[in-house]
Amino acid sequence: MNRYDKAGPTSFALGTQATFYLLESASKEARKVYISPKQNRDETYGRLVSLCKEKRVPVIENNERIFRDLSGKDNVMVIGEFEKTERALNPKGNHVLLVNPSNAGNLGTILRSLVGFGLSDIALITPCVDPFDPKVVRASMGALFHLRLRRYASFDAYAADAGKRSYYPFMLQAQDFLPEAKQETPYTLIFGNEATGLPESFLGIGHPLKIPQTSLIDSLNLDNAVAIALYEFQKETMR
Amino acid sequence: MNRYDKAGPTSFALGTQATFYLLESASKEARKVYISPKQNRDETYGRLVSLCKEKRVPVIENNERIFRDLSGKDNVMVIGEFEKTERALNPKGNHVLLVNPSNAGNLGTILRSLVGFGLSDIALITPCVDPFDPKVVRASMGALFHLRLRRYASFDAYAADAGKRSYYPFMLQAQDFLPEAKQETPYTLIFGNEATGLPESFLGIGHPLKIPQTSLIDSLNLDNAVAIALYEFQKETMR
Repeated sequence: MNRYDKAGPTSFALGTQATFYLLESASKEARKVYISPKQNRDETYGRLVSLCKEKRVPVIENNERIFRDLSGKDNVMVIGEFEKTERALNPKGNHVLLVNPSNAGNLGTILRSLVGFGLSDIALITPCVDPFDPKVVRASMGALFHLRLRRYASFDAYAADAGKRSYYPFMLQAQDFLPEAKQETPYTLIFGNEATGLPESFLGIGHPLKIPQTSLIDSLNLDNAVAIALYEFQKETMR
Repeated sequence: MNRYDKAGPTSFALGTQATFYLLESASKEARKVYISPKQNRDETYGRLVSLCKEKRVPVIENNERIFRDLSGKDNVMVIGEFEKTERALNPKGNHVLLVNPSNAGNLGTILRSLVGFGLSDIALITPCVDPFDPKVVRASMGALFHLRLRRYASFDAYAADAGKRSYYPFMLQAQDFLPEAKQETPYTLIFGNEATGLPESFLGIGHPLKIPQTSLIDSLNLDNAVAIALYEFQKETMR
């Protein structure tokens, strides 16, 4: 049985697109590429096999079982196995910091938004969802492979590593609204857990901000809040 | 077996919070409220029962089976049964129009964002996911009950109903960027299917816009794109 092992050294990118991203952007971490016996020997197949050869990544074409075990009902034809690797963040870059995120789909979507808005660094405060879970990789559509990601046990541990920068915790209790934020770089946008938000103590860190919203909802979805904040901070530099 | 019937006249709001929203904001559509025999007879229970009495909605307390059938593993103690009702949109209000949305979770999150940014009207072009599916209601956290929602067979059918307004289709092929959009009201923000986006023909409608983003991702998640657009169009009027 080929199960994803949270404690093991490798994880899996399910799907052709995600595997291409792995080979193109993180080939040092790629260990093996599995191609289903059912995959057509078409042009995509040819490109994939030659990219594996170029990057010296072994191709396995006779392991039908791994597709049943890992991809369930989904029609996956290619799986990339990769080493789970945390990397040092760029102290001069802009970051997103998620405190105790718990949902794999949300995290994957957030990774995709980071890449979409030109950021390269994300930090997570534990306990949190396993960022290398195949569900996260899947929801990120391979964006994980464009990012430096690192877990920390506390905000202080992160801050000691992150270099001089401006912090923007997103909290409903903040006084200042996002559209009026004085934007300084490098910055870290900070978000709390899906259900509980950030601890009150973050009101004393940097420049707490809130996204204008009615009182008819408790809060925006976490990945929506991150996307809005990234949009507001990056929109001027994206063109 | 109490299954949700897509063709039937009623659907279900799973959970205490969503049922309160149903009773508070759409009590005319509420048919029954089921309370689990396992629910504590606490203060929330008291408020719920008295609200049902005030709104003349029958309370059923001995149907344990409906909780097993409808809520699966989730720990749901209250279910509100409601009539699926489409309502005429406000021709003077701002709208969101989704063309062929296919994902229940995305649609629910989008309904929540609409309410969060002060909109009251949403139109869907069929074919699309069933907006009354309990999964949508759940993901919307009851926001559905704050909205007027209507399905149309085509954009033209919608436009004939929607009154004079400005259209903003969101498309990667658009020339103009969202941050520079000249915002006119009332407006309709238009988004395509999660996988395929809007048909090219929408380039000829109103003022097509794109959200600035890198070419490293195919596109933002649909519900993220809607949240960003609503934020940009509503941020000035939200305070």
